[in-house]
Amino acid sequence: MKQDRAFALDSILNNPSSPWMDGSGNLADVVISSRVRLARNLKDTPFPHLLEEKEADQVLDRVFSAVDLIGPRGFGGEIIKVRLDNLSLLDRQVLVEKHLISPQHAESGFGKGLILRQDEAVSIMVNEEDHLRIQCLHSGLELDEAWILASGIDDLCDELLDFAYDERIGYLTSCPTNVGTGLRASVMVHLPALAMANEVSRVLAAVNKLGLVVRGIYGEGTEGQGNVFQISNQISLGQTEKEIIENLSLVAKQVVSEEKRVREGLFKNRRAELEDRVFRALGILSNARRMTSNEAIRLWSDLRLGVEFEMIPGLTMKDTNQILVLSRPNYVQRTAGKSLQPEERDTRRAELIRRHLANRKV
Amino acid sequence: MKQDRAFALDSILNNPSSPWMDGSGNLADVVISSRVRLARNLKDTPFPHLLEEKEADQVLDRVFSAVDLIGPRGFGGEIIKVRLDNLSLLDRQVLVEKHLISPQHAESGFGKGLILRQDEAVSIMVNEEDHLRIQCLHSGLELDEAWILASGIDDLCDELLDFAYDERIGYLTSCPTNVGTGLRASVMVHLPALAMANEVSRVLAAVNKLGLVVRGIYGEGTEGQGNVFQISNQISLGQTEKEIIENLSLVAKQVVSEEKRVREGLFKNRRAELEDRVFRALGILSNARRMTSNEAIRLWSDLRLGVEFEMIPGLTMKDTNQILVLSRPNYVQRTAGKSLQPEERDTRRAELIRRHLANRKV
Repeated sequence: MKQDRAFALDSILNNPSSPWMDGSGNLADVVISSRVRLARNLKDTPFPHLLEEKEADQVLDRVFSAVDLIGPRGFGGEIIKVRLDNLSLLDRQVLVEKHLISPQHAESGFGKGLILRQDEAVSIMVNEEDHLRIQCLHSGLELDEAWILASGIDDLCDELLDFAYDERIGYLTSCPTNVGTGLRASVMVHLPALAMANEVSRVLAAVNKLGLVVRGIYGEGTEGQGNVFQISNQISLGQTEKEIIENLSLVAKQVVSEEKRVREGLFKNRRAELEDRVFRALGILSNARRMTSNEAIRLWSDLRLGVEFEMIPGLTMKDTNQILVLSRPNYVQRTAGKSLQPEERDTRRAELIRRHLANRKV
Repeated sequence: MKQDRAFALDSILNNPSSPWMDGSGNLADVVISSRVRLARNLKDTPFPHLLEEKEADQVLDRVFSAVDLIGPRGFGGEIIKVRLDNLSLLDRQVLVEKHLISPQHAESGFGKGLILRQDEAVSIMVNEEDHLRIQCLHSGLELDEAWILASGIDDLCDELLDFAYDERIGYLTSCPTNVGTGLRASVMVHLPALAMANEVSRVLAAVNKLGLVVRGIYGEGTEGQGNVFQISNQISLGQTEKEIIENLSLVAKQVVSEEKRVREGLFKNRRAELEDRVFRALGILSNARRMTSNEAIRLWSDLRLGVEFEMIPGLTMKDTNQILVLSRPNYVQRTAGKSLQPEERDTRRAELIRRHLANRKV
């Protein structure tokens, strides 16, 4: 049984494709994915950073037992439970690159666990900043669906684990910014046309004014990489879950319509330039022998825009999105089964991308 | 008969490949081609720039008649004779791009003619700076062969036309720098490795000190384009033909050995970088939708180096060299049958190169 689970996790770590980036769902030409995350803590138990190793292990055991009781039926799919200290650093970092755990959770430490639905749509970090971080990821603009899924799992867990909750202020969390609903909702959007038209900062400044936060694809400090941005709610107190989700959905739809407006203009007025850019990206990705992750994500952005315009025969959105994970430093190293020097990584990355694109049906 | 000749010239103008760049011959991995040019003038006839239209036409008629008498046997192949005023400006400029006539000869003016052997190895400009400029072009380092060919044709012409010759100073020419042997010999070399190693200027400065001139692929002002350089003798007086040819051959061989030394080092120590560069060039040339002639020749240089290292299956040196002509502004416009705006040219150029590379056998 344990062997099977290890194998199941291995297949997730090996696969550069996650269902949340298969290009399906609402407005998927601009919205890559939607995520809902709930911060929850066990009643009468100190927050994780205050726990001794033994106590942290007890929390992990309690959560794992509850998950077993809930079972695949409650989760809507097969579940994998892992203690992160059983995984190599490389494996943990690949989970970060697949957006299944946070960078903090990948750091070494005791009592850390991960519960993962086989299709990667549900993941629960145990003993990250809070005892539980229940996360649901969907492809496209599907915040409602992600929220319904997360909320259902939250209810099942609450019955068995009894979460810390205050009638007046809501769920108690380790960091005050999460107090209240404990909800963070986010959408990952791809804005290549706004970027080409130098309109990204204007649009994102407006988003900020609406009380939402904008981060890069891999969190702060990665702004603009691949023209991918994550938009999320800043506060979880003083608004109902429904309001948070609705507000973010609305803003996301506005951003989508801005991006689409500019895309249409580009397609109409700058088609030759656009095609040139898309096919150069394809040419370089299909032929280069060395490539940094920065260049890969830059070219990926051009390629994805081309796929959205149906310029490239035989290349699906799913295949295209896979390049995102395929080109991440830790994923690249994991395929080699060892850590690599930057130059070796660049060579291997180029090879992985090249082979991946050579497989497309033309 | 006239129809046939027009057709023969048309096939030369349509074909981006010239035998002189088929990648054959001595040291052809570095030396693209060897050229020998003889400046000759008719005795007791003013130089071309002093001729009235009628007189220039008489010179042209005399030369054309002599050529007819010499016939295909004397020239070693079928001969095409054309009056340049019968050609469009675009056609004349394509002849320049194929190195068959000089830029000056393509300019409008009266009495200008061209005699061309069907395989493009022999061309005679009539009424350029001198009455005759007999040029022989060979692939590779084949100065002796080109000289023997040029000299044979010179002798046959001299018998019929009687060239202006002074026992003391030699052949009389319009410009004093050509007086004496009237010989200009040149080699076109491709030095991508020396360029990558930043050693081109050192090597070419040494060449200059030996009394030779270095120009770019399309003459002065194109230095460095595609890492192609033309090395030629500066003076034609005071040395015998044999000395001029031998001297240039010797210098060319030294340049070749410098280039090859650096290439070997690159292949040994920087192979990954080299391969990356070569395949990126291939990827961009095979996929771009718009390309300037400057970018095309830059990428061509990388591609050619890759072909020399046998990195690219199915791509011959001949196919590669064709890109040189294929990407020239006038050739590009001629394929469209009309002059084009720069942007239209860039689009058409990219398409021509793309189709050309798609035809290679992989």
